[in-house]
Amino acid sequence: MLKPLGMLNQALTKPVMVELKGNRAYRGILEGYDPHMNLVLKNAEEFVNNEVVRKMDVALVRGDNVIFISP
Amino acid sequence: MLKPLGMLNQALTKPVMVELKGNRAYRGILEGYDPHMNLVLKNAEEFVNNEVVRKMDVALVRGDNVIFISP
Amino acid sequence: MLKPLGMLNQALTKPVMVELKGNRAYRGILEGYDPHMNLVLKNAEEFVNNEVVRKMDVALVRGDNVIFISP
Amino acid sequence: MLKPLGMLNQALTKPVMVELKGNRAYRGILEGYDPHMNLVLKNAEEFVNNEVVRKMDVALVRGDNVIFISP
Amino acid sequence: MLKPLGMLNQALTKPVMVELKGNRAYRGILEGYDPHMNLVLKNAEEFVNNEVVRKMDVALVRGDNVIFISP
Amino acid sequence: MLKPLGMLNQALTKPVMVELKGNRAYRGILEGYDPHMNLVLKNAEEFVNNEVVRKMDVALVRGDNVIFISP
Amino acid sequence: MLKPLGMLNQALTKPVMVELKGNRAYRGILEGYDPHMNLVLKNAEEFVNNEVVRKMDVALVRGDNVIFISP
Repeated sequence: MLKPLGMLNQALTKPVMVELKGNRAYRGILEGYDPHMNLVLKNAEEFVNNEVVRKMDVALVRGDNVIFISP
Repeated sequence: MLKPLGMLNQALTKPVMVELKGNRAYRGILEGYDPHMNLVLKNAEEFVNNEVVRKMDVALVRGDNVIFISP
Repeated sequence: MLKPLGMLNQALTKPVMVELKGNRAYRGILEGYDPHMNLVLKNAEEFVNNEVVRKMDVALVRGDNVIFISP
Repeated sequence: MLKPLGMLNQALTKPVMVELKGNRAYRGILEGYDPHMNLVLKNAEEFVNNEVVRKMDVALVRGDNVIFISP
Repeated sequence: MLKPLGMLNQALTKPVMVELKGNRAYRGILEGYDPHMNLVLKNAEEFVNNEVVRKMDVALVRGDNVIFISP
Repeated sequence: MLKPLGMLNQALTKPVMVELKGNRAYRGILEGYDPHMNLVLKNAEEFVNNEVVRKMDVALVRGDNVIFISP
Repeated sequence: MLKPLGMLNQALTKPVMVELKGNRAYRGILEGYDPHMNLVLKNAEEFVNNEVVRKMDVALVRGDNVIFISP
């Protein structure tokens, strides 16, 4: 079995796509996480309705709003 | 009695359908779960209004938004 | 006094109706539950606006969205 | 002082009115409760916009959606 | 410092106004409370959009929906 | 570092502005608080869409709905 | 691995952008935080739909509504 936090652990230092409620998504390098699924992303791009609307060196994305995370 | 987490345990390595709030659904092989119903799906397809909109090798689906899970 | 979880315990192996937020309902045989009111239903039918829209051999219905459960 | 759970305790075996979010209400005999305000009602009537829409021998009403309970 | 629960304690046996989400309010004598801000009101009046829509001898108002309480 | 509850502690007996969800705000003297950010305000004014709609000698504002608090 | 709270710790005394639900954002110097992501910002500017609508010497922003935080 690959538990959810184990999957996040395997994804460390790799690019992930994070879909949030409200038509927002983030793509970036997964630098860290915690058990609430709060995520630290490096070189993060924010997408709203599939368009890049912002680029950030580092972003902490709150886990509450996450729908899915995919490496 | 078959408890909810017991049912998830029996579904490991098998295909499941996961319906979320907001007309989203995921189908994939259940690779793992935790007590919050966060799920790791392999070969996941995302459906919006019953149409496949994305395919992912692996996806971590957050349990918060789950309505039902069916093997 | 018949506590809520006691009522669920008495309903095990019997048909129940489960009403969820968002005009969804499930009818099926109650196979299991946990203290969060997550439910395992066998031979489950899903109703949207009172029409059967899906049949499932087994379904895990998340307790979060429950409005009421009736045997 | 009459604490909330104490009031529920006094209401056991008596009729109560339970108002929920979303214009739903239930009237029935209070058979049980738990600290989450989950309620077991006997001879329950469900009201939507003040009209009886369903009668149930027993219903477990989830406490999450409760606005008020009145004996 | 007057802590929130201390203020509720001082308001016991006195009239309070309770504003809830969704344009509902209750006025009544505060008979009890718990740390979740669930409240027992005696001689309670329910207001919707500032009009009295219901009178109740006793009402248990769930704390979840409270916006403010004022003696 | 000035932690959130430390900031509230420094603001005791001073005027604060509290913005809530739903276009509501409160201004008053901070008399007390708890770790949930429930607040006791003295000489409180309630604003809806930036207009004073109510004045209260004391008000307990529930922390759940707070967006920000500013001294 | 850089955990979410570790990232906040590194951002102390530096400017951060905080995006909240409901098209609100705050920019300010991060003075403190707690594990709920409640934040103390100094010299804070509030943005609604990308326009500055308020300036505050200090603001406590509740973590519940945070979507992301970026240094």
